[in-house]
Amino acid sequence: LDALMPNYVSTGPGDDCAVFSVPSEKSLCVSTDTLLAGVHFPLDAAPEVVATRAFGANLSDLAAMGAEPYAATVALTIPSGDADWLGRFSAASRTCSELHRCPVVGGNLAKGALSITLTVMGVVPDGTALLRSGAGIEDDIYVSGFLGDSAGAVKQLGRDDANADLLGRYQNPEPRLRLGAELLGVASAAIDISDGFVSDLGHLVESSGVSAVINRSQIPVSNMLVKVFGRAVALDLALNGGDDYELCFTAAQEYRDQINAIGKQLDLNLSRLGEIVSKRHSVSGARIVDADGQEIEAAGYRHFL
Amino acid sequence: LDALMPNYVSTGPGDDCAVFSVPSEKSLCVSTDTLLAGVHFPLDAAPEVVATRAFGANLSDLAAMGAEPYAATVALTIPSGDADWLGRFSAASRTCSELHRCPVVGGNLAKGALSITLTVMGVVPDGTALLRSGAGIEDDIYVSGFLGDSAGAVKQLGRDDANADLLGRYQNPEPRLRLGAELLGVASAAIDISDGFVSDLGHLVESSGVSAVINRSQIPVSNMLVKVFGRAVALDLALNGGDDYELCFTAAQEYRDQINAIGKQLDLNLSRLGEIVSKRHSVSGARIVDADGQEIEAAGYRHFL
Repeated sequence: LDALMPNYVSTGPGDDCAVFSVPSEKSLCVSTDTLLAGVHFPLDAAPEVVATRAFGANLSDLAAMGAEPYAATVALTIPSGDADWLGRFSAASRTCSELHRCPVVGGNLAKGALSITLTVMGVVPDGTALLRSGAGIEDDIYVSGFLGDSAGAVKQLGRDDANADLLGRYQNPEPRLRLGAELLGVASAAIDISDGFVSDLGHLVESSGVSAVINRSQIPVSNMLVKVFGRAVALDLALNGGDDYELCFTAAQEYRDQINAIGKQLDLNLSRLGEIVSKRHSVSGARIVDADGQEIEAAGYRHFL
Repeated sequence: LDALMPNYVSTGPGDDCAVFSVPSEKSLCVSTDTLLAGVHFPLDAAPEVVATRAFGANLSDLAAMGAEPYAATVALTIPSGDADWLGRFSAASRTCSELHRCPVVGGNLAKGALSITLTVMGVVPDGTALLRSGAGIEDDIYVSGFLGDSAGAVKQLGRDDANADLLGRYQNPEPRLRLGAELLGVASAAIDISDGFVSDLGHLVESSGVSAVINRSQIPVSNMLVKVFGRAVALDLALNGGDDYELCFTAAQEYRDQINAIGKQLDLNLSRLGEIVSKRHSVSGARIVDADGQEIEAAGYRHFL
């Protein structure tokens, strides 16, 4: 395993701390997320699913900053020392780590109800990180990929006739790291869609002190989601379903051609679906309205606090 | 809260990631630890105890590297959104964070069985971090403070006549950050005592490929521990009890005067209690023997794997 460590890591797992250097003129981006069995993945989820969902969700936060993965720590709590489970989890973690070039430099193993807390660290040139707070009036609003697939998969969990493609989108989310990197210097603000599109766009406009007008007809919904659920339910899942791990970002209108080119280069659907407008003074401090003026309310995942 | 952020933190809590810079010519030291209710603290522990034990245990890992605290993330899982509990936890975390100059730059809040995973990051001049693997033949072996108090407190948990001083040592461990910093360039190897002295010295000698001879009579045991438990039990707690969060370190004999001076400067008991010897080829690959040649076996906390 030491052979897999990049040369900026001088001490990997096995000491009191991992030790590594950070390139000069780069800032460190750090995010931590806990995934609990029975909440963020099924109680009987395969160890591969636990690993890929944990890495996907956490690396997605780096993608939203435009950061390049640099190092991670894994804190795993498991109910028993099941060597087979642990071996499969470790192998899947290694695969994620190698695929995204994010070495696991340390960790912790404890005995208890199954949960996993990853802390991911990425690097970005000083002063360039994509923030939630940078959206300006008249900026375009974009979203990557297709929304709602993961929420559709959750509705089908445990069913024999579950759609395998949707299930794959839930079990193995793809963090949009390459897109985030390409958006440095282009996007004015970004957030990853974990709670749900309306909810997360709400966080972005709230942070930026603006409002948003969205064209519902431009919400990107996959053919498979429509085929399984019909258009109305698919659109609701796209607006309010969580776990998509796509990026929602804003950019000044002058970047339209460049953003089209980025989408083609990455072979990734980038939908321009709205515009940033000045803040409407409502209770929440930020509103998202449809093109017809009707307010779109977040019905997405709500934190219990 | 933003006013408390040091100027190297450009983005604190509230975005997808925290963003901060790392000084040139310094390396980052990272450690993560999970504390579970019913395992690492009592199920009914006060929120202040959860916070101080989590910060103490994690910052102790930075101390063992000689690193200066720089940033932390806190992933908290709690069974309900108890505002009083959370407020007290937050206040205690802020106190720890300020006391040790370790800003909390991000976090996660989830609903489930009570647990806390901290990830602490510290900085140390490039190439100077104290490792477990650096102990050399004929080096002296030292330990800071007094051992066994915390394990003594655990034996008394829930009793009306529990010793308040011992309890304080368990509830509010003092990470030896100033000692770690002073040992840079002096100590050849270091580890913090979390599993128990014999067990953790075992990790150090194993990493260094050496063995250790310990003089049992030099093991530092507090008067209060002896008073409560008698000398024999106190010594056993000191050898094998966990959660002391003192530092065990080795240094070449030429540093004896300097180490005495460090102890005086910090008003901290530093006991020289043994010597590193060449590796004896036993099953475990490392042995710890008493001055009379009798092997001391680790009976400390054992990870379940």
